Amino acid sequence: MGTRLEELVERLGGQLIGDGKIAVSGIAPLSDAQAAHITFLSNPKFRSQAAQTEAAALILSSADSEAIGATYHGARILTTNPYAYFARAAQLFAEQTALPATPGIHPTACVDPAASIAATAVIGPQVVIEAGAMIADRARIDAGSFIGRDARIGADTHFYAHVVCHADCEIGARGIVHSGTVIGADGFGFANDNGVWVKIPQTGRVVIGDDVEIGANTTIDRGAMTDTVIGNGVKLDNQIQIAHNCQIGDHTLISGCTGIAGSAIIGKHCTIGGAAMIHGHISIVDHAVISAGTLVSRSISEPGFYTGFYPLSKNADWEKSAVIVRNLPAMREKIRELEKTIKSLVEHNEDKK
Amino acid sequence: MGTRLEELVERLGGQLIGDGKIAVSGIAPLSDAQAAHITFLSNPKFRSQAAQTEAAALILSSADSEAIGATYHGARILTTNPYAYFARAAQLFAEQTALPATPGIHPTACVDPAASIAATAVIGPQVVIEAGAMIADRARIDAGSFIGRDARIGADTHFYAHVVCHADCEIGARGIVHSGTVIGADGFGFANDNGVWVKIPQTGRVVIGDDVEIGANTTIDRGAMTDTVIGNGVKLDNQIQIAHNCQIGDHTLISGCTGIAGSAIIGKHCTIGGAAMIHGHISIVDHAVISAGTLVSRSISEPGFYTGFYPLSKNADWEKSAVIVRNLPAMREKIRELEKTIKSLVEHNEDKK
Amino acid sequence: MGTRLEELVERLGGQLIGDGKIAVSGIAPLSDAQAAHITFLSNPKFRSQAAQTEAAALILSSADSEAIGATYHGARILTTNPYAYFARAAQLFAEQTALPATPGIHPTACVDPAASIAATAVIGPQVVIEAGAMIADRARIDAGSFIGRDARIGADTHFYAHVVCHADCEIGARGIVHSGTVIGADGFGFANDNGVWVKIPQTGRVVIGDDVEIGANTTIDRGAMTDTVIGNGVKLDNQIQIAHNCQIGDHTLISGCTGIAGSAIIGKHCTIGGAAMIHGHISIVDHAVISAGTLVSRSISEPGFYTGFYPLSKNADWEKSAVIVRNLPAMREKIRELEKTIKSLVEHNEDKK
Repeated sequence: MGTRLEELVERLGGQLIGDGKIAVSGIAPLSDAQAAHITFLSNPKFRSQAAQTEAAALILSSADSEAIGATYHGARILTTNPYAYFARAAQLFAEQTALPATPGIHPTACVDPAASIAATAVIGPQVVIEAGAMIADRARIDAGSFIGRDARIGADTHFYAHVVCHADCEIGARGIVHSGTVIGADGFGFANDNGVWVKIPQTGRVVIGDDVEIGANTTIDRGAMTDTVIGNGVKLDNQIQIAHNCQIGDHTLISGCTGIAGSAIIGKHCTIGGAAMIHGHISIVDHAVISAGTLVSRSISEPGFYTGFYPLSKNADWEKSAVIVRNLPAMREKIRELEKTIKSLVEHNEDKK
Repeated sequence: MGTRLEELVERLGGQLIGDGKIAVSGIAPLSDAQAAHITFLSNPKFRSQAAQTEAAALILSSADSEAIGATYHGARILTTNPYAYFARAAQLFAEQTALPATPGIHPTACVDPAASIAATAVIGPQVVIEAGAMIADRARIDAGSFIGRDARIGADTHFYAHVVCHADCEIGARGIVHSGTVIGADGFGFANDNGVWVKIPQTGRVVIGDDVEIGANTTIDRGAMTDTVIGNGVKLDNQIQIAHNCQIGDHTLISGCTGIAGSAIIGKHCTIGGAAMIHGHISIVDHAVISAGTLVSRSISEPGFYTGFYPLSKNADWEKSAVIVRNLPAMREKIRELEKTIKSLVEHNEDKK
Repeated sequence: MGTRLEELVERLGGQLIGDGKIAVSGIAPLSDAQAAHITFLSNPKFRSQAAQTEAAALILSSADSEAIGATYHGARILTTNPYAYFARAAQLFAEQTALPATPGIHPTACVDPAASIAATAVIGPQVVIEAGAMIADRARIDAGSFIGRDARIGADTHFYAHVVCHADCEIGARGIVHSGTVIGADGFGFANDNGVWVKIPQTGRVVIGDDVEIGANTTIDRGAMTDTVIGNGVKLDNQIQIAHNCQIGDHTLISGCTGIAGSAIIGKHCTIGGAAMIHGHISIVDHAVISAGTLVSRSISEPGFYTGFYPLSKNADWEKSAVIVRNLPAMREKIRELEKTIKSLVEHNEDKK
């Protein structure tokens, strides 16, 4: 029983050192790994812990392997990126225990006859799919989700229970969308007419690439006239708000509770911390990193690591510093006055020399 | 085919200059407008772009019309507010392409016999409506929405898929509520008894006026004993949290991810930026403007534009400034000492004169 | 009709002074209480208002009772915690008017034959319950909620409409979960492989204790390998995000829109204000109090009251102070220079003595 190391290497690559017939039942981190597991070393500071693991095998870099070679003699898989190897191995073990979903449409689902559902797709109970929608091969739409008119769901994409994808929106292949997420609600666009707000119809779509994961209760609004666009490989956490006409570049990762205002353009390979806030109509360059809780109020044109949140203090200390923050212009004025006085004192002394 | 300019003016007002028989197929912004479109000029800085548009007609102010009169000779509609005119024209074109919804109750909906549903209302698949609820004329409740006992939904109001409106709550006419929004969940009220929280029943309602739009995954809690009240014409974006007993004044607009704590009273015609935070039990005057990401910790009694967020920096620079922010009281003390020393130096010099 | 004071005291304790046969129809705060009500005094500053109440009876402390004894001669219930007594009395009145829910499974619910549903449980319309799930005695699952495979819902726990509880997760007894909340979506875990994010399967659960209330549209992610754990008596408001592997201690209260990043450990009896942000992999001691809008970027090891948000100003004033905040290191440098100059001036003066 279990998976033999030679099978792992065949599937995921890496250089096997040791007996390929050794079978492992699963993967666990160094701190939890038991004799039946394979484990991994992704940070050199845990070398001594790795050297003493009881696990049946170890995934690690060749540098780490050499470093612990004197004490660790067990089986190992060498790879340049042990953490990514761990992720892929864990996926493989998870697949083995996953329950197979039976293709077909649950009898309680409400699917319009003019929708196009692949024979290999899985449509759960009480799903509603409107006319013209297309659900591709092996896509899985779980209980109670809603797919609007002419929406398109790519192959192998999985909607968990209670996802909403509105009319005309589309998502590519191998996507994962978690419960409560709403794709394609109207963007927030109004014209003010003497104090009364007049709605601007939101006639664009949401277009999402391949290999995108979207967390729970996230919202991505449809564009006002053009589309809101999410690139390939983007990962969005829970409770993110992406407003109309935003563009998120490929392989950008955004943590939970972040809000992105309308028409913001985020580059590729960015990492945005939780509860960040991005102003509308700005652009952020590729490879920018934004700290959690940071408000980005202007465009960022240079890759790098950006931060802006008020530091934590005991409340009594914060009360004192916050008052000064509010009065900083007065403090600066005071310093300028002191500077002048000192300058005249210095000159006075010079004169007397 | 298309809509003739004379029809537009008949419906929406404005002064037509040019051939009223010209027909347009839709409306587009200056940057995208093609020959079949009508377009609009709402900002004088785009006059030269407007003067060269290929669009069949132009909506603009009389001042702008005069300014470009030397180069633009096409048809035009003069109005005092071209942007609002654009919004209304866009609504009109959107209505023309909208699919008509068929009145009636979908067979998979679960409607209590003691609910009152107007004959012209549209109740979608798998909607649940409890006893005593009233759905007014031409209201539309989309797939999977839930309407609790004795709730009231006004005429022409549209709930998108997966809206929840709990017992006794009400919304007026011409409202739009987007997917995943929850109206009337319990407010967050507890009494502390020796470290254990005792729930205070939330027996008030949510009462929402006419012409209100509410974004996706927003939450508006029912009052503790009295009601939470949202005025007429209020526009709420996605993922907003409005706590129990809040009052939001007419025609106030609140952007996404904003949180408003209990019993806050927001005036009329306010504009609140995204991810703002409003403390409980405070009041904000009419016509206040709050920047995105700003925490309002005290009442605002004077209309104006208010801000409070930590400015963005490169992380390394932020690290340095944040340390100083935390130690500002020490810096102020240092300045006071310098001031004293300088004063004594000055006096010393005076003495020697 | 109504509830006699002697019944209240029998159910909820306290010392009755006055006629126990007096019946009251409900409870109301001092400001609203009418002759048929019982009311309460929980803050000594309202003593004079309490002394003049028209309410049939008054809940208060013995100290307050003595203080107003000269003017108030009506019935009263003495208790050490009048506010908690009010909460419990209000619960009692609310129970009296609540509509009884009929045990059983609604015919439109979709319950797997291999799920275990207590005979006293109430399963609403269009609920979906998967195989292996267990719904305990008197639990109530309202319309359209989803209970995943092998999930466990404790006795007397109430899920409002549209709650999602994913596979293997569990919640204890007497819980309340509001609409739109998602328990057990995947945590946000990825390994980066040459710029591409590789998903780490989230194989842990969410385990929630007894007497927990969770607001609307909140999300609690399942653990990556171990569990996300919510203690007994925890109260979570709306739109909170709790990431994978967090632990929230017993009787902690968290207000709306707060985000807690992965593997954060929050102590017992903490109070966390709205829209707070807690970094991942930190721990917060028991009895910490965090202000609204505060980002907690490091562990807190000492109980106390912590704050960190940028103070509100008029925008024009903020513009000035924010520029200085960003340039505080330059200001500190300037002060150091002044200090040096002054020191040399002082020394110069000393030399001349």
